Amino acid sequence: MEKFYFELKHVCKQSGARYGILHTPHGDVETPMFMPVGTLATVKYLSPEELYEMGSQVILANTYHLWLRPGEDVVSNAGGLHKFMNYKKPMLTDSGGFQVFSMSKTRKIDEEGVHFKNHLDGSPLFLTPEKSIEIQNKLGADIIMSFDECPPYPCDYKYMKDSVERTLRWAERGKKAHQNPNQALFGIVQGGDYEDLRKLSATSLANMDFDGYSIGGTSVGEDKETMYRMIEYAIKYLPSDKPRYLMGVGSYDSIIEGVLRGVDMFDCVLPTRIARHGALMTSQGRVNIRDKKYEYDLSPLDPKCNCYTCRNYTKSYLRHLYKCDEGFGKRLLSIHNINFLLKLTKDIREAIKEDRFLDFKNEFFEKYGLNVKNPRGF
Amino acid sequence: MEKFYFELKHVCKQSGARYGILHTPHGDVETPMFMPVGTLATVKYLSPEELYEMGSQVILANTYHLWLRPGEDVVSNAGGLHKFMNYKKPMLTDSGGFQVFSMSKTRKIDEEGVHFKNHLDGSPLFLTPEKSIEIQNKLGADIIMSFDECPPYPCDYKYMKDSVERTLRWAERGKKAHQNPNQALFGIVQGGDYEDLRKLSATSLANMDFDGYSIGGTSVGEDKETMYRMIEYAIKYLPSDKPRYLMGVGSYDSIIEGVLRGVDMFDCVLPTRIARHGALMTSQGRVNIRDKKYEYDLSPLDPKCNCYTCRNYTKSYLRHLYKCDEGFGKRLLSIHNINFLLKLTKDIREAIKEDRFLDFKNEFFEKYGLNVKNPRGF
Repeated sequence: MEKFYFELKHVCKQSGARYGILHTPHGDVETPMFMPVGTLATVKYLSPEELYEMGSQVILANTYHLWLRPGEDVVSNAGGLHKFMNYKKPMLTDSGGFQVFSMSKTRKIDEEGVHFKNHLDGSPLFLTPEKSIEIQNKLGADIIMSFDECPPYPCDYKYMKDSVERTLRWAERGKKAHQNPNQALFGIVQGGDYEDLRKLSATSLANMDFDGYSIGGTSVGEDKETMYRMIEYAIKYLPSDKPRYLMGVGSYDSIIEGVLRGVDMFDCVLPTRIARHGALMTSQGRVNIRDKKYEYDLSPLDPKCNCYTCRNYTKSYLRHLYKCDEGFGKRLLSIHNINFLLKLTKDIREAIKEDRFLDFKNEFFEKYGLNVKNPRGF
Repeated sequence: MEKFYFELKHVCKQSGARYGILHTPHGDVETPMFMPVGTLATVKYLSPEELYEMGSQVILANTYHLWLRPGEDVVSNAGGLHKFMNYKKPMLTDSGGFQVFSMSKTRKIDEEGVHFKNHLDGSPLFLTPEKSIEIQNKLGADIIMSFDECPPYPCDYKYMKDSVERTLRWAERGKKAHQNPNQALFGIVQGGDYEDLRKLSATSLANMDFDGYSIGGTSVGEDKETMYRMIEYAIKYLPSDKPRYLMGVGSYDSIIEGVLRGVDMFDCVLPTRIARHGALMTSQGRVNIRDKKYEYDLSPLDPKCNCYTCRNYTKSYLRHLYKCDEGFGKRLLSIHNINFLLKLTKDIREAIKEDRFLDFKNEFFEKYGLNVKNPRGF
C-alpha cells in the first residue's frame, strides 16, 4: 500500500498556479482537482462507474452524517468506506466541524468539544477532536480532517481569536489521537477575515507538520472578494510542499480564483444540489431546465459537452423528467454538472502544465461574463 | 423497417406452454417475456443501458400519463418515444383505459367515451377510443392497445355484458382510427369472471383480426384462482398464431401460471414499486432490506443472482441507502427485482424449448413454497 504524499510537479510560469500529484493508498490523483460529495457514502443517484467515466478522482463523504447513519461501526465492519460503497479510488472525510455549525441551531462549545443537536431527531450529541478522529479512523478514508470550529462571518475579533486558539489545541489533540498511519491527516486553517489570525492558525498548524492543510471558514456568508482574501492570508503561511484544500467551494469562478492563489483541492455539494433543482452549468452559461422554452428543444444541455447526458438526451426529455420529479432526471442532471467541473479542473491542469493559466482564466471569465466584483452564474 | 408479426416457434410437449418470437420495427424479441414499466418514459431511476444489460426486451409506457405530461406532441416532436427516451428496443403503450379506472375516483362512461378527472389537478378529461389511438400513434410505440373499459371485480352480469359490448364497439372504432401500419394494434379481452362474456369478447376481437390480444380486467381485486380462470376463459377462444398479453401481472407465481395457460407477454409495476419500498425477490424468497438483521450483513441480496447490484453491493450498504431514502438505493434495488423477473422469463423460455416446463414449474413452486391455493411471496 502506497503511503500518502504530495508531489508538486509544476508551477505555472504565467500565474504561479500549481500542478501536482497526490499519492494515496488508493492510487495517484492529479491536482488541482474537484471532489464530488457523497455525503452518506453515495454521490446522490450515481454509480462509482459513472464517476470513473467522468474522470472523478477523490470523492468526499461526511463524517457527521455517517456517524448518525449507518454508524461508523457498520462502515468499519465492511472494511471501510471504499468497500462499503464500492468506490475504488481515493476518498476523503471531513471532521464534522462544519456540520456542527451548519446543521444544528443550538450548540455549546467548550474546551472539551461541542454539544449540539442531532438534525434527525433533536437528541443531544457531543463531538470532540478525539471522537471525530476515531470515527474517521473507522470510516477509513485516505484523507481525514482535524476537528475544528467553523465560526460564522462576520465574527468579532475576540471570539475568533479564542476560537482559532482552541481549534489549534483541538488539532494537537486530534493528531495525537490519530491511529492509522495509512490515513493522511489535514489541519484546518481558520481565522476568518483577520490576517493575523489566519497567520497564527496557518503557521501553528504548519509547525505541527500535517499531511496537508485545509482552508476553512469560507462559504459562510462572506462575499467572494473577502473569500479570496482569506485564501491569500492562509496560503502565504503554508508550506508549498503540502496540498491545500479549499473546503466547500465549487462555483467555477471560485475554483479558478482559488487555483490562481495556490489551492490544489476543492469540494462542494453545489453541482449536484443545483442539478437536482434543475440548474445546469454549461458552456453557454446557466441553463434552468424547467424553463418552458425547452419544452420542444431537441438539442443537448450543452453542445460542447461530451458527458453521458449530453451524448444521449435532449433538453426536451430532461425538462420532462425534471417536471415529473423523476429520479432518472436527477441522475442525468447530476452527471452533467459533475462532469462540467471535472472537465474544468482537467482543463485547468493542462493550462498550468503549459504555463498559460492566466490566459485560460481571462478567456474563461470573458466567455462567461465573469469578474471578481460581479461574479455571475454560480 | 420490419413489420410486426408473431412467430410461434415451439409448444412445450410437457405443458403446452409457448415459445415464440415477436418481430417488430425495433427488432426481434422472445416470448414469454416480462416487460418493465416506464410509466413516464423512464423506468424509474434506470438507464436504457442498464435495462439492456439485464436482457430487457420490450418496455411499456403509459399513454394516460404521457398524455398529461409532457403531452404526446412533445414526444412526437422528438420522433416518438424511442428517440425521446433513447430506448432502442421495442416499446408498448397501453390505452389509458386502466388508468381511467384506477386513477380517477369519479368517471362517467357513455357510448362516446369516458369523462373523468386529471389525477394531478382535478381538471375534467375526456378520453375516447379515437383519442387514445391518436395519442398512441403520436407516441409511436411498436405495440399499442385498444381503448377499453376495465370494470371492477366483482361486477354484476348485466353491467359486465353492457361493458363488454361497448368495449367491442370501441375496439372497432379504434381499429378504424389507427393510422400507422408500423404499429401493431392489440384488442383487449374483458368479461371478468363470466366465461360466456370472455368468449364473446375474445371471439369478436379475433374476428376483427388484431395483431395480438391482451387479457384485461385482471389484478383488480380478484383472487389468484379466479384470475387463472379468467385467463383460461379468454385464451380458449383466441387464435394460437397471435401473441397473448396478460396486462398488469408481474408476481412470479402468476407469470408461471400464466405461461402454463398460454400467455406470451406480461408487464407490471410490481418489481420496481416494491423495490423502492425495500422488498426484493430472491432465490431465498422475499427479502425486506429495511430489516435490522441486515445492518452488518456483508452478503449480497441474493447469492445466486448475477445482477449489477448483487455483484457489487452488500445488504448492509443497501439497507443503509434504503434507510436514508437515497436515490441510488432505489436504483440498485430496482435493478435487482427487474433482473429477477427477466432471468425468470429467460429460464422459462429455456424450459419450454426443452419440453420440461411442467418440471420447471413444480421445482420453482416447491422451492418457494408456493401453491395456487396459498400463493406466498409476491
